[in-house]
Amino acid sequence: MSLSKNKISYITSLKEKKFRNKHHTFVAEGSKLIFDLIQSMKCQLLVLSENMKDKIVAIDAEEIIITTQSELKKASHFTTPPDAIAVFYQTLHDYTTLDCAKKLNLILDGVQDPGNVGTIIRIADWFGIENIFCSHDTADVYNSKTVQATMGALARMNVHYANIKDIIAQHPDLPIYGTFLNGENIYQESLSNRGFIIMGNEGKGIRPEIEHMITNRLYIPSFSTNTTTSESLNVAVATAIVCSEFRRR
Amino acid sequence: MSLSKNKISYITSLKEKKFRNKHHTFVAEGSKLIFDLIQSMKCQLLVLSENMKDKIVAIDAEEIIITTQSELKKASHFTTPPDAIAVFYQTLHDYTTLDCAKKLNLILDGVQDPGNVGTIIRIADWFGIENIFCSHDTADVYNSKTVQATMGALARMNVHYANIKDIIAQHPDLPIYGTFLNGENIYQESLSNRGFIIMGNEGKGIRPEIEHMITNRLYIPSFSTNTTTSESLNVAVATAIVCSEFRRR
Repeated sequence: MSLSKNKISYITSLKEKKFRNKHHTFVAEGSKLIFDLIQSMKCQLLVLSENMKDKIVAIDAEEIIITTQSELKKASHFTTPPDAIAVFYQTLHDYTTLDCAKKLNLILDGVQDPGNVGTIIRIADWFGIENIFCSHDTADVYNSKTVQATMGALARMNVHYANIKDIIAQHPDLPIYGTFLNGENIYQESLSNRGFIIMGNEGKGIRPEIEHMITNRLYIPSFSTNTTTSESLNVAVATAIVCSEFRRR
Repeated sequence: MSLSKNKISYITSLKEKKFRNKHHTFVAEGSKLIFDLIQSMKCQLLVLSENMKDKIVAIDAEEIIITTQSELKKASHFTTPPDAIAVFYQTLHDYTTLDCAKKLNLILDGVQDPGNVGTIIRIADWFGIENIFCSHDTADVYNSKTVQATMGALARMNVHYANIKDIIAQHPDLPIYGTFLNGENIYQESLSNRGFIIMGNEGKGIRPEIEHMITNRLYIPSFSTNTTTSESLNVAVATAIVCSEFRRR
C-alpha cells in the first residue's frame, strides 16, 4: 500500500492548531513514542515504513498503512524522517472530575515554547503530578513539538486549558506557589503536598493578575559567585527543581 | 552599508563545525545574547538591523555593519530572523590551569543534542559550577543551537573537550558521581562539594568504560504511581535536579 496525497496533506495539515481542533486529532512520530501512546490513546491512522511491517502484530489502529521512507518524509512534521507516523484522537479531560483538592497540581501561565510544555509534562509525570492546567495562551499540548518532548508522558497526564483565575478561585483553601526573584528560598520553606504550583511565561514570568493570587512566593537561589550570571533558569528546568523540592520531603 | 554576499556566506558557513574550527569563530544571534557575550568575548563582526543603530555606542567589535532585516534573514542560522548577528572568536580554555580538585565539576559523556548542552551550561552557571569537561562526541559548544540555549552563560564557563577517562584518572582522590536506574536515592545520600558529576548520552546513558570509574551511583526517584511512567528524565532536567541537590546542602 502507499500513502495517498490526501493522507499526506491531512497529516501535514495537523501542524496547524485549527486543523487539529477541527478533526480532534494530533500527530506523533517515531515508533517508540507511538507504541507508548497507543497503550492508552485511540489511534486513527498508523503509517509505518516497510521494515517495521513485522511489528504491527496486535496494534490497535483504525487504519494501518505500510509505505516507503520517502513518503514518510513527505508526511513528517520534522526534518528528520521517522520510522512511523501516527494520528491519534485528542483526549478530552473534564476537570470537574479531577480531585485537585487532595493533590499537588501544576498551572502553566502563558508558557509559550511547545518544547518547554512537553518537557514540563514529562517532568510532572515523573514526579507524580497528574493534573496540569494551562492558560489559553500556553502552547498547545497537541503541537507536534510538544507531543515529541513529552516522550509518551502525554498519555498519562490530565492536561486542561482553562481560565487560571477561575481554577484558583475554586480552591480558596489551597496554597498557591509561584517562583519569583524576590521570593523565599525554596530550600528553606515548608512545602505542602497539596495545592497549585504556577510556572510563568519564558520572558515575562507570571502575569500580575495571577501573581496577586499567589500565597507562597518561592525563589531558587543561584550559587554562582559571578555577578553577571543570568537572572533566570529555563522554565522547564525551574519546574524540575521545584517539583523535586516538593517531592523529596 | 550593506552585507556583502561574501559576509553572508561566511556567517552561514559557520553552521558547520569544520568552518568554525577553521576560523576559530562562532555565531550568536539576537541583541540580548550578543550584548551579554560581548562583555567578555572578542567580537569579530557585528551585524545590526537599522533600528538598532543607536545601540552601538561603546560596543567593541572589529567590524560593525548596519543592514536590512532581509539581509539579516539571509545570514541567520535560524528561521526567525534576529535583530542582530555577531561572529565571536572562540575562547580557548587550558584545563591544566583549572583547579578542579577543590571544586564540583561537570562531565558530559556523549550528550548529543546541542540544545541540551546549552541548557546544561546555563544550569551549571546558575549553580556556580565553572568547569565542564565534554567527551569528544558531545555536541559542539559553538553550535548555534548550543550558543542560543546558554543564554549568555557560555561567556562565564570553562568548557573543555577532552578524553574523559584521562580527566578522571588525574584525580584519583575525588568522588565521581553518576546517575543510574539502580543507584542510591540522591535525596538520602551524602554529597560532597568537590568532585565530578557525570551526565551521559540521551539514549544510552554513561558508556561502560566510564561507568566503572564511578565511585557514587545516584538515582533520582520517580514519585509516579503509574507503572507505565517513562523510565528517564531529559538529561538537562536531570542535571538541574542533581546540581540543585548538591548545592542546597
